[in-house]
Amino acid sequence: MSRSVRVAVVGAAGYAGGELVRLLAGHPSVEIASVHAREREGLPLANELPHLAPLGLSFTDGEPEDVEVTFLALPHGASAAQASRLLDRGITVVDIGADFRLRDADAYATWYGAAHPAPDLLADAVYGLTEWARDALRGTKLIANPGCYPTASLLALIPFARAGLLDGDVIVDAKSGISGAGRGAGPAYLFTELTESTRAYGLGGHRHQPEIEQGLADAGARMHVTFVPHLVPQSRGILATCYLSLADDVDDDALAAVLRRAYDAEPFVHVTDEPPTTKQATGSNHAYVHARRIGEARAVVISVIDNLGKGAAGQAIQNMNVALGLDEAAGLAGLGIHP
Amino acid sequence: MSRSVRVAVVGAAGYAGGELVRLLAGHPSVEIASVHAREREGLPLANELPHLAPLGLSFTDGEPEDVEVTFLALPHGASAAQASRLLDRGITVVDIGADFRLRDADAYATWYGAAHPAPDLLADAVYGLTEWARDALRGTKLIANPGCYPTASLLALIPFARAGLLDGDVIVDAKSGISGAGRGAGPAYLFTELTESTRAYGLGGHRHQPEIEQGLADAGARMHVTFVPHLVPQSRGILATCYLSLADDVDDDALAAVLRRAYDAEPFVHVTDEPPTTKQATGSNHAYVHARRIGEARAVVISVIDNLGKGAAGQAIQNMNVALGLDEAAGLAGLGIHP
Amino acid sequence: MSRSVRVAVVGAAGYAGGELVRLLAGHPSVEIASVHAREREGLPLANELPHLAPLGLSFTDGEPEDVEVTFLALPHGASAAQASRLLDRGITVVDIGADFRLRDADAYATWYGAAHPAPDLLADAVYGLTEWARDALRGTKLIANPGCYPTASLLALIPFARAGLLDGDVIVDAKSGISGAGRGAGPAYLFTELTESTRAYGLGGHRHQPEIEQGLADAGARMHVTFVPHLVPQSRGILATCYLSLADDVDDDALAAVLRRAYDAEPFVHVTDEPPTTKQATGSNHAYVHARRIGEARAVVISVIDNLGKGAAGQAIQNMNVALGLDEAAGLAGLGIHP
Amino acid sequence: MSRSVRVAVVGAAGYAGGELVRLLAGHPSVEIASVHAREREGLPLANELPHLAPLGLSFTDGEPEDVEVTFLALPHGASAAQASRLLDRGITVVDIGADFRLRDADAYATWYGAAHPAPDLLADAVYGLTEWARDALRGTKLIANPGCYPTASLLALIPFARAGLLDGDVIVDAKSGISGAGRGAGPAYLFTELTESTRAYGLGGHRHQPEIEQGLADAGARMHVTFVPHLVPQSRGILATCYLSLADDVDDDALAAVLRRAYDAEPFVHVTDEPPTTKQATGSNHAYVHARRIGEARAVVISVIDNLGKGAAGQAIQNMNVALGLDEAAGLAGLGIHP
Repeated sequence: MSRSVRVAVVGAAGYAGGELVRLLAGHPSVEIASVHAREREGLPLANELPHLAPLGLSFTDGEPEDVEVTFLALPHGASAAQASRLLDRGITVVDIGADFRLRDADAYATWYGAAHPAPDLLADAVYGLTEWARDALRGTKLIANPGCYPTASLLALIPFARAGLLDGDVIVDAKSGISGAGRGAGPAYLFTELTESTRAYGLGGHRHQPEIEQGLADAGARMHVTFVPHLVPQSRGILATCYLSLADDVDDDALAAVLRRAYDAEPFVHVTDEPPTTKQATGSNHAYVHARRIGEARAVVISVIDNLGKGAAGQAIQNMNVALGLDEAAGLAGLGIHP
Repeated sequence: MSRSVRVAVVGAAGYAGGELVRLLAGHPSVEIASVHAREREGLPLANELPHLAPLGLSFTDGEPEDVEVTFLALPHGASAAQASRLLDRGITVVDIGADFRLRDADAYATWYGAAHPAPDLLADAVYGLTEWARDALRGTKLIANPGCYPTASLLALIPFARAGLLDGDVIVDAKSGISGAGRGAGPAYLFTELTESTRAYGLGGHRHQPEIEQGLADAGARMHVTFVPHLVPQSRGILATCYLSLADDVDDDALAAVLRRAYDAEPFVHVTDEPPTTKQATGSNHAYVHARRIGEARAVVISVIDNLGKGAAGQAIQNMNVALGLDEAAGLAGLGIHP
Repeated sequence: MSRSVRVAVVGAAGYAGGELVRLLAGHPSVEIASVHAREREGLPLANELPHLAPLGLSFTDGEPEDVEVTFLALPHGASAAQASRLLDRGITVVDIGADFRLRDADAYATWYGAAHPAPDLLADAVYGLTEWARDALRGTKLIANPGCYPTASLLALIPFARAGLLDGDVIVDAKSGISGAGRGAGPAYLFTELTESTRAYGLGGHRHQPEIEQGLADAGARMHVTFVPHLVPQSRGILATCYLSLADDVDDDALAAVLRRAYDAEPFVHVTDEPPTTKQATGSNHAYVHARRIGEARAVVISVIDNLGKGAAGQAIQNMNVALGLDEAAGLAGLGIHP
Repeated sequence: MSRSVRVAVVGAAGYAGGELVRLLAGHPSVEIASVHAREREGLPLANELPHLAPLGLSFTDGEPEDVEVTFLALPHGASAAQASRLLDRGITVVDIGADFRLRDADAYATWYGAAHPAPDLLADAVYGLTEWARDALRGTKLIANPGCYPTASLLALIPFARAGLLDGDVIVDAKSGISGAGRGAGPAYLFTELTESTRAYGLGGHRHQPEIEQGLADAGARMHVTFVPHLVPQSRGILATCYLSLADDVDDDALAAVLRRAYDAEPFVHVTDEPPTTKQATGSNHAYVHARRIGEARAVVISVIDNLGKGAAGQAIQNMNVALGLDEAAGLAGLGIHP
């Protein structure tokens, strides 16, 4: 508790950046040294995000100074260059953007439509799905925070991958709240367009698919994943419904046991007896997972997270905590908000 | 147009029954002779459903009298007995409940937990997925209106089944608005519980699964269907995301062609170039379907309907129109409501 | 029924214009000759408004041709010039924009920040709050369709104004769904910003205030109106809560009697025994009003409408019907959509 | 920080009780000794409120034991008897129900329809609108936590009452999220009934009206208040729009100055330059107030709170902190959740 880590948040005018500020403001070992957003230097943070008004912060000009850690909440392509400069100055970088998630620069080029801006850094970046990356995270200077869909999907799938139960056929049907589209989303994301509306998107391929496949490969299951994201009319939350073909025909108890072995000691991942709701995770860093046998040699595994919590800002802080040797749960005590 | 069919709606205090009344009130060849609901005899319909106040209707006591058609919007188990009495009196019955959907009385017993109340009528009932049942519907006296999920799922799947393209592996991940749970839903369906919440349910088996399998078998594809329904925080609408294994590896154009061959002449089923939204069907009898190749020899087919429209009351009226030889689209001119 | 009126809709890519098309498509005496929207000539209407896809319409280039009536759904300032040209060609104009609502060109300049674009037409325009303007509407060529808030407010207030009961103090606290802001609304109207959010706006003065005051003056009550609009997280609907000081201390029955005398013969305005909900009007041209004594010599009068129905497109069609001598309710049979 | 206060929450299965548990779990000087709910003894709290699952709490049988403070979140009539027993045992009671809000037992009988269950305790209860009651709160053993509407209304009105600016005419038009109706709300509160719906209620008189009048009288302004509550389709949040007649005609700056004098030193009440939104308070103990001149000698004052935060559980904890001499903001660091 006595230690105080000075941090900066870059991209603090967006939803993920704002959530970082909200959570960091309650972190017992953190001092928010500065918040940054393009073209808003000197203006009050509350102009953009009125719920943060009580903090009295304003956007700072220039690069973060005199900080130990910087969180980057920037569009892909924008964070790599800044990360490079910050790392050169000895600052730990937690990138909640996409630039360091795929370890393969060619895959990045394929999926993000441009050469990777800093390919030499890729080998140093630790992919921070915290529960499965603690050893690598300790002491690291560059954290690639997982995407929201991969976080939900991999928390559901990795236990089965590591148990050798996956048998070549995974479908992830994911449902996300609208906040995943960000504050810069266009007219298609107006309230009037989205209320009473559910739809699929990204059928031609979504950047989170190779990230899920990379995570499964790391867990020993190299396979194609069919990934179809959907938008549902709520602000926060992801529910990933994962359909697995199993190597063995295992019953409900055995499926639950696989999840419990993986997560029973975890503070933020909980195995539930009933299918979880996105709402029970809202505003928190908690994830809920549930598995069920369905048909023969098939299972459905469901996980829920708050896309801005465990799917972005929460996990970013969890990762910083591990990297710096702080209490992993510090600043993350908040439970879901209900109702 | 000159003809006027006298109809009754039984179960008019519920959501599907109320939607029937709303639509029938605008049907150019229909006169609503009476509306019925248990324990509400003599009371104004507007007490239950204020949006119908301008009609000035009250609930009628007893069985429908002096009508040509009766719509039954009752819980399963309740409609069969009443249907039997109405048929004996020569009245055409459109059952939007579940009693006549499964043709096999044993399957009914398995899935509905009780012996079928009128097994002798099962052979007479026509399963009214209109677009695929017109010949059988003409002149029939007993229509089994399909369930909401089966309607959405089968509209997506039947064209591929009939084209011989299905290859033994169908997953239907369905998302439904809350109205599917009905006006009698319990405290888990309070606004406060469901806003900002998406969840799966029925993982242990849902009664609409055998109905989808029956519909596929009728189309030549006898197979197991994995069916997982979800609730999303909106009042109306179903989006069914169907994952198919294909017998051939066909491209996007060929997939679209399968749908277009099936539906291009249809007034209520539309093939879209982009993934459709539930909202574009809200309040209407229209369905929108879309197909896309995904991975190798796989496809995703998406369909949207209003669960109370094409998924219940709209299709019921469409079926009545066909059965009686009226204009099939009569009373169903309403488009989706947006925004 | 045999007559067919050819109409055009200008501004058909917006919410009010789209609602006009939706309703006109079901009007028994209307043929939609063309739909228009700037910079979208030749493109399918369904690109903008997918719920209208079944109509198969595309935007037409240029001015409406060969039509009897044109509906203008344009921003203020834009409709006056076009109206002038259309009137010169003998076409009846229903302007659902703001240009002809205030009869006083100076008031227009004050509230709309520019000189009136066609002041010579102001004297010809009929302010179309249908229930109180039928005589003037018959045969008119230029209809100023009332604003959404004034429609809700004046339906509540005029009966009391005409009864001489208003005593110099009216407050209208209005709550509106988001669709009132239009399809062109900016980032503050994203789903994520507005869900779970209610707020007041326009505290410095709203253009609908002088329109309400003009309507009251026409009904014999010249007075200042305090008008505070709010946004509530729903797509459609306006609820106006009107606080009146009464010249006499009248009881609930007398208040209801004032409303009933005004509206009991009306097809679209209904006096309710309980406070109405916005939802019961959704998608329809119906309005619901309710009055209650509160404190001494005070009353609260509540009205609800669909801002796009009776508050815009519905009333526009009602006005056209009256102007052309058609059945006033033609094309407006649709009831509220529930749930 | 070193001190640890053992507390119990009675009525923890409801929304306000659950919010108390959520907040108390993060209070640095509190230990939750037990949670209680009728007929749920021994069962996991997570059965009722899954978002609290990570706490691992179960409901305790019987009365709270070995605690310093008990929070009562019970229906009116139920808390008084239990409060009496707890006080006898020296336990500090924070009643977030209604039993001790009205100081006058006759007024209680009038508005709550029964004789007060413990009239002898009324004189000891401190009405805990914290910002205006700190001196009385210190060391008190019985705290009457204000109602949600009175909290929002009085925060807006008291500064003007104390400044002698109120002139005999106050109207409070309040908009509330649905959670105010509680977890036990009936079928009228289903998601399907309330989405897309705004309505007024309580026109015949609401129990929070005399509470607002009592608060104003305490601030030197004895007057009738017209109070009309509304439900808006969101889970949390209250926006109170207060219309005042002013003794003097003061401008916007002077109005803002009145609020700033009252609240500039307050950690939880903030004066805003723009009309606040309910969303910026969601999940927090913060309140936002804003004033504006409107017409002559009139003002509108708007305040927003989270009805479960500052309007219930948050303020209850703030009051406990003051009563016990803890840091007033302890456990209440959480900011609003956005988006």
